[in-house]
Amino acid sequence: MIYLDNAATTKPCKEAAEALLSCVENFGNPSSLHGLGLEAEKIINTAKERIARKIGNIDKRHIIFTSGGTEANNLAAFGITSAMKRSGNRIITSKIEHPSVLEAFKKLEKDGFDVIYCDVNKDGRLDIEAFRKAMTADTIFVSIMHVNNETGVIQPTEEISKIIRAVSAKCVFHVDCVQSFCKIPVTPSKIGADMITVSAHKIHGFKGCGALYTGGKRLIPTIYGGEQQSEIRPGTENIGGIAAFGAAAEASKPDRELMMSKRKLMKETILSMYSDAVFNGSDEYNSGSVLNVSFPGIKAEILLHSLERHKIYISTGSACSSHKPQPSHVLTAMGVGAREIAGAVRISFSERTSESEIIEAAKKIASEANEIRKFTRL
Amino acid sequence: MIYLDNAATTKPCKEAAEALLSCVENFGNPSSLHGLGLEAEKIINTAKERIARKIGNIDKRHIIFTSGGTEANNLAAFGITSAMKRSGNRIITSKIEHPSVLEAFKKLEKDGFDVIYCDVNKDGRLDIEAFRKAMTADTIFVSIMHVNNETGVIQPTEEISKIIRAVSAKCVFHVDCVQSFCKIPVTPSKIGADMITVSAHKIHGFKGCGALYTGGKRLIPTIYGGEQQSEIRPGTENIGGIAAFGAAAEASKPDRELMMSKRKLMKETILSMYSDAVFNGSDEYNSGSVLNVSFPGIKAEILLHSLERHKIYISTGSACSSHKPQPSHVLTAMGVGAREIAGAVRISFSERTSESEIIEAAKKIASEANEIRKFTRL
Repeated sequence: MIYLDNAATTKPCKEAAEALLSCVENFGNPSSLHGLGLEAEKIINTAKERIARKIGNIDKRHIIFTSGGTEANNLAAFGITSAMKRSGNRIITSKIEHPSVLEAFKKLEKDGFDVIYCDVNKDGRLDIEAFRKAMTADTIFVSIMHVNNETGVIQPTEEISKIIRAVSAKCVFHVDCVQSFCKIPVTPSKIGADMITVSAHKIHGFKGCGALYTGGKRLIPTIYGGEQQSEIRPGTENIGGIAAFGAAAEASKPDRELMMSKRKLMKETILSMYSDAVFNGSDEYNSGSVLNVSFPGIKAEILLHSLERHKIYISTGSACSSHKPQPSHVLTAMGVGAREIAGAVRISFSERTSESEIIEAAKKIASEANEIRKFTRL
Repeated sequence: MIYLDNAATTKPCKEAAEALLSCVENFGNPSSLHGLGLEAEKIINTAKERIARKIGNIDKRHIIFTSGGTEANNLAAFGITSAMKRSGNRIITSKIEHPSVLEAFKKLEKDGFDVIYCDVNKDGRLDIEAFRKAMTADTIFVSIMHVNNETGVIQPTEEISKIIRAVSAKCVFHVDCVQSFCKIPVTPSKIGADMITVSAHKIHGFKGCGALYTGGKRLIPTIYGGEQQSEIRPGTENIGGIAAFGAAAEASKPDRELMMSKRKLMKETILSMYSDAVFNGSDEYNSGSVLNVSFPGIKAEILLHSLERHKIYISTGSACSSHKPQPSHVLTAMGVGAREIAGAVRISFSERTSESEIIEAAKKIASEANEIRKFTRL
């Protein structure tokens, strides 16, 4: 099996599995007053320390664990807009965000917020001039992803942050770092973010666990209940998932240069066998973990399934909207043509993807695409 | 170690741990179109079937997985009231609910709903006459727990359901079955519920996973994002936790009679050594899994910590509000005196608690309570 769908989810690493298994014996409820509760609280603290260290230069007390990236993005969007609704009515995002940001913004639009969905350029990066025009003193919340999940393109968060700061001191800048955490640096002070979202199952942890770094900003909770997590996110903590998240973060060895060389190798090998393949999104501003490639004239689903017979796993667009028959909203926003979108696949790497796997997969992808082209006319 | 805090959380069983571990190899994203995604979807389906079978006589398509009981209770309360706000303005709950229901209702009260918090009787059961008076044609949502987490007392959900039905055909009746699932029957048609909440870590599954049986009722989501779970609860599913939940449900062998005999043994052994112990809540209407006992004149925290030195784990009230210095809202609502509340502990059993453990723990609890009494005057 050659697994090249790491942007959808990753295989849990040994360290994560061991951390989770340790919670079978260490099963206390962190809210319990007795020793087992204390042990559970320690597990959470260790995970917080590890994640805080990996994020870099943040206060671990500002980490709120959630059920995943989706809930963390929702908590940021709803939590900040509820807390700040008297300070202004505009909120800004981009057209290429993950559905957990876009759908939250659509809900806020229904609720009466003035929502701007910023355009992106052909290379998949935010149109900075459009953003500059959209950013007003009335803007209370901006959410822009760090690395796009369909293209791997890094967004200009530092520039965005500077524009925000020049206009408003109170506006909160949230950055969805689900696809960048443990791949490229996400330190809030460096990328210009007030708050960031991270997720365990994209970094070889388990599904069902994510976190929001709140930056100490006041949030109105989206879930109500007990006193867990300073009452910002009640509910008994997912200790096993949290322990595994911490272990996976600790075990990760981000190396963008290495990822970029893997991506380049994949691209060049495909191109050498399929000369009219079209690559979507900036090569320069890329995390190195995703290669989005169009085979114009073929249908991506057919390619995906024919590769599956060879145990090579890639995807079309993102997993979370894969069952929708609509064309990718990301590629559409980038101005990619309908024919290119129909033939676009996402190949996404992990630190563990080997060079030989890349070469083998690239050859198979190109040869299968060539085969399919022979029999289809789109 | 004698663990008697099973109402707070339980030790994951072998079956749950194995199911979760299988997801290390079987790590696909259920939304992925390729075979690994399909495998993940199958895991979810198997878990749904198992849980549906254990709940009894329900359509598995109406199970929505959440991050736990808290989120499921919130989804019911916010989801139904949002969907039905044009049909009426009254919502009813009881004074002894879990904080995830009570705090959700407080939020809804702030939002303008007419909220009734029903009284309970001395025995810890809902005051049916008070409920009858509260129930109006304007009532759109009622949430009453099945078994109370501090006393083990079973609530008269069938009677409540009949009163609701006599007044309104549209009102939705939600029952929080977190403390009853896999202990006593929770089949919605039998207990009179439209919707029920269940949680994995109370039945020897893992923390971080619960479910809402929606009964097919229309709900407005509380989380927005991808197309997972019919868009009612987006976000990549916690496959490992879900698989373990299904396995734990399948492995459970509910036996109320056996639990009742354990509870009785604990009660009688304590009473034989500490004659002025006071037991809180109905003996007749009890799930058998919780014994709430007051040692008037001593402070429960001191007893808890002195038992801990002997590796016996019990609790004061519920875990989720254990760090609050306030007296138990459940015992307060039952009219238990301040002195009895201060000396109240919760002893909660699992199917796996042995008779010899119960006798050993009961003796230790009574003897430690006697020791403490010698040195304190409250």
